[in-house]
Amino acid sequence: MLHVLTREDAVALIKEKTPRFQPKTETIASADCLGRILAADLTAGEDLPAFDRATVDGYAVNAADTFGAGAAIPAQLEVIGEILMGEAAGFSLRRGQCARISTGGMLPPGADAAVMIEHTEQADGLCLVYRSVAPFENVNRRGDDLAAGAIALKKGTRLNSAAIGILAALGIDEVTVFQKPVIAVISTGDELVPGKPAPGQIRDVNTSLLAAAIREAGCEARIYGAVADQRAAIEQAVKACVREADAVLISGGSSAGARDLTVGIIDTLGTAYFHGVAMKPGKPTIFGVIDGKPVFGLPGHPLAAYFVFRLIVSPLLRARMALPPERPLTVGTLAENIPSNHGREEFLCVRLREDRSVVPLHTKSGVISVLSEATGFLRIPRNAEGLAQGTTVEVYAL
Amino acid sequence: MLHVLTREDAVALIKEKTPRFQPKTETIASADCLGRILAADLTAGEDLPAFDRATVDGYAVNAADTFGAGAAIPAQLEVIGEILMGEAAGFSLRRGQCARISTGGMLPPGADAAVMIEHTEQADGLCLVYRSVAPFENVNRRGDDLAAGAIALKKGTRLNSAAIGILAALGIDEVTVFQKPVIAVISTGDELVPGKPAPGQIRDVNTSLLAAAIREAGCEARIYGAVADQRAAIEQAVKACVREADAVLISGGSSAGARDLTVGIIDTLGTAYFHGVAMKPGKPTIFGVIDGKPVFGLPGHPLAAYFVFRLIVSPLLRARMALPPERPLTVGTLAENIPSNHGREEFLCVRLREDRSVVPLHTKSGVISVLSEATGFLRIPRNAEGLAQGTTVEVYAL
Repeated sequence: MLHVLTREDAVALIKEKTPRFQPKTETIASADCLGRILAADLTAGEDLPAFDRATVDGYAVNAADTFGAGAAIPAQLEVIGEILMGEAAGFSLRRGQCARISTGGMLPPGADAAVMIEHTEQADGLCLVYRSVAPFENVNRRGDDLAAGAIALKKGTRLNSAAIGILAALGIDEVTVFQKPVIAVISTGDELVPGKPAPGQIRDVNTSLLAAAIREAGCEARIYGAVADQRAAIEQAVKACVREADAVLISGGSSAGARDLTVGIIDTLGTAYFHGVAMKPGKPTIFGVIDGKPVFGLPGHPLAAYFVFRLIVSPLLRARMALPPERPLTVGTLAENIPSNHGREEFLCVRLREDRSVVPLHTKSGVISVLSEATGFLRIPRNAEGLAQGTTVEVYAL
Repeated sequence: MLHVLTREDAVALIKEKTPRFQPKTETIASADCLGRILAADLTAGEDLPAFDRATVDGYAVNAADTFGAGAAIPAQLEVIGEILMGEAAGFSLRRGQCARISTGGMLPPGADAAVMIEHTEQADGLCLVYRSVAPFENVNRRGDDLAAGAIALKKGTRLNSAAIGILAALGIDEVTVFQKPVIAVISTGDELVPGKPAPGQIRDVNTSLLAAAIREAGCEARIYGAVADQRAAIEQAVKACVREADAVLISGGSSAGARDLTVGIIDTLGTAYFHGVAMKPGKPTIFGVIDGKPVFGLPGHPLAAYFVFRLIVSPLLRARMALPPERPLTVGTLAENIPSNHGREEFLCVRLREDRSVVPLHTKSGVISVLSEATGFLRIPRNAEGLAQGTTVEVYAL
């Protein structure tokens, strides 16, 4: 007989029993890395910027030449040339000299600051500077942004557009990221049919729902499709999926008998470790290991299957990609009291209003349309007897 | 001479001058719709569930037959058969009769409730019911989830896994979504080079950064690449992009002269409407229209280009996909005072700590590595003189 576990214990047991479900890496082109997870610290191979750059349009100067300059007594500097964009100056500044420079231009040797054009006047080869600048004022120094050898992006960074900008700045064309684990989905149930259901039959929701949730989690979905509640058919599907995927989700059947069948199959092909988690929805969750690969039995009811995916399966997938545990999307203020059963952790869809109040969406078991109205969900801890109106609650993204 | 506008005025003017930049739709397979935006209300074509279903394993009953039943005086019902999953019962219940049913099974005619197996005992063809049930207890009624004709998903819904589950439940194989606008990116600047930069030269960051930001915004990026700061080269690039894309972004050059060149080209090929927005970073933003298509001149500095994309360009793209204005990711408490300049809206990268405190990331102009440390950014309104420590601030996602 398998125990009913708390969710924390279930998640811990799953990790303990799947020591081979470890992150793997691959190297891909930076152009294709949007959304992927960096698998190693990425070090700057060079200084960024690679040279001292002006951050204003004006004149490159030796700051000391401007000390004491003001509106009444401008510093007078000799203009010895212009620095073109994309080129090193062909000259050095001596004391008393300056050169025209544009934003982004490279400071010539001898210059250590830039004066804004607005604070100057040019006449007869001379530049009159009406305001003093400090050394390195209006300048990005070499290595200011990133020094060669510094960590530019940390292992575990999700590569968003900002990170991709940093890769481009450093000229990094390839990155090593975590592989997307391949997760197989099997739906079971004699009641599932393709096409128009006859009375008593329903469509297979969980294959599409779970495949999309797998992709949202940054993994790859391998769809096996729906199979009838027959031992041989399910066994064959599970064997094929264990061969081809890194983990397997079996959703449904909804009856106790069908769930026992799933447990039996997992225990025949490998080892079943638990059947039942003290959470709602999601109680009839099954977990086992076949050939070292995690295999989950998810409830047939789509809303419950979704929550089990997010709360039991996803923590393992995140760990596989070296991601930290999921954090709440935001916090809000509960708009009404929510009762709950002591001893069972509960998850409830909510809508977040503009004023950040959090409205629970009450639904009957078996209803999935609530997902279309929900912004996210909240958690009622196992030992709470509900949550009071006005409580600050954490909301997780749907 | 073109004015410097507030950001709100800039965004409003952009919409006013681009009346042809309107949402377009396309019909795609539901299997490919993850992340897309629904272009029309989606109506349920049938009841969901399509029949009254048991939500427990047990017996289908006529609730009235159980009234008054208790632990001491069970109701005694005749078991006339079993309802198989995926089939309509071949019989009706008369008063005093019941039938074995599993979770998800279809109630037979004459039944209006289900009794949990735990509250029954079977002996000699009789079922003893030790607890009464109310009509429709432990049942999902036909149409409970969605009634035929009800709106299942609203126009503008981003199709996440939950929405995809609803599509599957309704048997909807194709959906009409908003097209992804195609946004072209041109980088300009004599200092930009492919490969290893020589002294004075830099890599093109903005092409990669903006292309990724365009994709993150749910649009398609068309990369033109880097061109020199020469009128003919930029003109040719802009013409090609206006032909092939729905909108064009021209980033850089960083100097005032280069920006004037961009304004001049837009005004030659079409009409330039503004040059300068009262925001930091992002002041030297340019906007015009060529052949009815919006064309933006973005700052050459990557961080500034990124903020202008998010704050000036992105509102237009969201409107094009019928999305509401972006909302903050979350709120937090400011960990320190932030000074700012009255009269100019400011945007600042921040890190959100676990305790929801918000730490500003101070940077020199020209630095982009700050993006790798930031969780998001906050806004300092134009008429504020900074923000005080302890203020609750809204944080926008990076």
